[in-house]
Amino acid sequence: MIPDGVLYLDGNSLGPMPRHIPDRVGEMLTDEWARGLIGSWNDADWIGLPQRTAAKIAPLIGADPDEVMVADSASVDLFKLLVVAARLRPDRHAIVVEPTTFPTDGYIAASAARLLDLELRWCDPSNPLAAVGRDTAALALTHVDFRSGATYDLDLITSGAQAQGAVMIWDLCHSVGAVPVDMHACGADLAVGCTYKYLNGGPGSPAFMYAARGHHERLDQPLTGWFGHADPFAMERDYRPASGTTSLAAGTPPIVAMSVLHSALDVFDGVDLSALRAKSLALTSMFMQLIEERLPGMFAFATPSDPARRGSQVSLQHEHAYAVVQALIKRGVVGDFRTPDLARFGFAPLYLRFVDVYDAVAALHSVMESREWADPAFADRTAVT
Amino acid sequence: MIPDGVLYLDGNSLGPMPRHIPDRVGEMLTDEWARGLIGSWNDADWIGLPQRTAAKIAPLIGADPDEVMVADSASVDLFKLLVVAARLRPDRHAIVVEPTTFPTDGYIAASAARLLDLELRWCDPSNPLAAVGRDTAALALTHVDFRSGATYDLDLITSGAQAQGAVMIWDLCHSVGAVPVDMHACGADLAVGCTYKYLNGGPGSPAFMYAARGHHERLDQPLTGWFGHADPFAMERDYRPASGTTSLAAGTPPIVAMSVLHSALDVFDGVDLSALRAKSLALTSMFMQLIEERLPGMFAFATPSDPARRGSQVSLQHEHAYAVVQALIKRGVVGDFRTPDLARFGFAPLYLRFVDVYDAVAALHSVMESREWADPAFADRTAVT
Repeated sequence: MIPDGVLYLDGNSLGPMPRHIPDRVGEMLTDEWARGLIGSWNDADWIGLPQRTAAKIAPLIGADPDEVMVADSASVDLFKLLVVAARLRPDRHAIVVEPTTFPTDGYIAASAARLLDLELRWCDPSNPLAAVGRDTAALALTHVDFRSGATYDLDLITSGAQAQGAVMIWDLCHSVGAVPVDMHACGADLAVGCTYKYLNGGPGSPAFMYAARGHHERLDQPLTGWFGHADPFAMERDYRPASGTTSLAAGTPPIVAMSVLHSALDVFDGVDLSALRAKSLALTSMFMQLIEERLPGMFAFATPSDPARRGSQVSLQHEHAYAVVQALIKRGVVGDFRTPDLARFGFAPLYLRFVDVYDAVAALHSVMESREWADPAFADRTAVT
Repeated sequence: MIPDGVLYLDGNSLGPMPRHIPDRVGEMLTDEWARGLIGSWNDADWIGLPQRTAAKIAPLIGADPDEVMVADSASVDLFKLLVVAARLRPDRHAIVVEPTTFPTDGYIAASAARLLDLELRWCDPSNPLAAVGRDTAALALTHVDFRSGATYDLDLITSGAQAQGAVMIWDLCHSVGAVPVDMHACGADLAVGCTYKYLNGGPGSPAFMYAARGHHERLDQPLTGWFGHADPFAMERDYRPASGTTSLAAGTPPIVAMSVLHSALDVFDGVDLSALRAKSLALTSMFMQLIEERLPGMFAFATPSDPARRGSQVSLQHEHAYAVVQALIKRGVVGDFRTPDLARFGFAPLYLRFVDVYDAVAALHSVMESREWADPAFADRTAVT
């Protein structure tokens, strides 16, 4: 559901609302919460909702349903997985992350390293494996860079990290739902992702975790809430983890938010992921080509021209990127700004059309030709997103 | 909104839905998510929603608005606060909790103690201060016991723990919204509470944390997500905590769930908490008195007869408590069972009437007199809540 007059190129930040959500949420509130009350934990299977939601995400990342769990936020889930990884490699003393990653990943890694008394090692973003050695417990990387939209090679990096004995953790926030990833094929150990971008789960919707089956017997995570217990309602004094990825849950799951996500994922029913990827690349390639044709020399591309290294976004570098983005928004073309100088445009292949790409470039052309961006109203960087 | 034919005595587990919620949620979905899209972080002040929600909880716990934060689940929040407490007392080596607490609290405390290399010390529930000494970093207790409904004396325990130099952490899950608590008056250091019980925030709604102003300069919590950063959108490599309780946030807040909670809290506008407490005690006293009169000797009370030591629930001990609860549910009287032998009845003073108490006891009388509970259909303990 995109409002009239809006050309939405920010689905990589917050996906739009699937049309059926309000009806479905209304039913859930009235039938399950108001009428079913506490009985809905059983009767509406709220208790199984995290697993049912996970099962809908699994095929989007090349995983089995029981290798995925939905809980908490991506930040909190990454914390869990970093501790899991460190405990899988108790003899090692470093966690490797890259300094230009989405910042919450770095913040969380620093905190996990501090609690675990490990070294936090920043790697060279262009060659992360160089920082991974026999002392490394885990390498945590974001598959698609949130600024540039550049991708890492899942297979190459995963096997390289594992060759050093490190646990590979992928952050799939900017991939899932637009860039096919295959956890089985690349052999990743652990992964985390958010669901409010290309999965359209709603603002701040719950995140997911992946854990390869080979690790299921040793998932020793630190947020040992009762929903990760083997028998929550036995109310035992001591923690006994549930089996497999259920042990990655923590507190009571957010049922309303998870119902929204569960319902939003219906949009992906029957979608061919390779067709999705082809559409995504066609959209981003067309955008880049039109920019070069119509606005030659005006922007530098922060995004790789090689399609194999590109996510589902294009980021343009420009001194006045903030003002340019604001001027475009005023014209109904919604992208976003990322500090210090990036105008970022996401191309969600599920709902964007080629004509949208054409119209977006036409709007950008007008903004640049007319210098609309120089309007003093666009100079004030108070907007938070 | 209680369905016809239902007498709901389980608002201490999951509060019913306030009538205005579906309309409000529908508006939020359509106006803020679907129409406002990413701009709603600013235009609908999603960015400030956690603080706005916290400000509505603050008066219910005797706190200033900026001493409260809403984020994550109670389990995750307790983990944060235990680490905060330990870092406020770096020279100490024990965390004290009581073994019959709501289990997630014990599980989380054990995990925090393990990560921090501290001793987890189980105290005598009837005298928790005996386990608190000069080696104790924190004492974490649930104000109202989830099984018995017995309360601790907030003032006495807080001052006793602090006299030993320990940080006092209260779990207010079974208090807030039914049993007035005053964080300023008792001088508590930290507190956590859930919002889906007497606050009617919806299943799995976000939890809240309290931190006394005196600690705001030293809130060093471990789930350092970007929403706890001083400037999230500066996308800095290194973590710099936001000021005060905003630093207790972690990942992207769950906006849909938090909107439901924010709206549900309207029910408390203008409610006099001492009148609420008086109503609660009148309801539980009447229930206990009627049980004694009509079913003498049938049950033992797990709940204190002294009103000053009673929360807003009454728990009856009986060998066949599970079957009794199931038979009552079949009659439309919804309480719940807590292992091993408790039939638990919550009396939410906001919406329960005295006639409900009378009718509930009449139903219980019928169940016991007719031995309805002995129906084999009620023997199977498969229900999860």
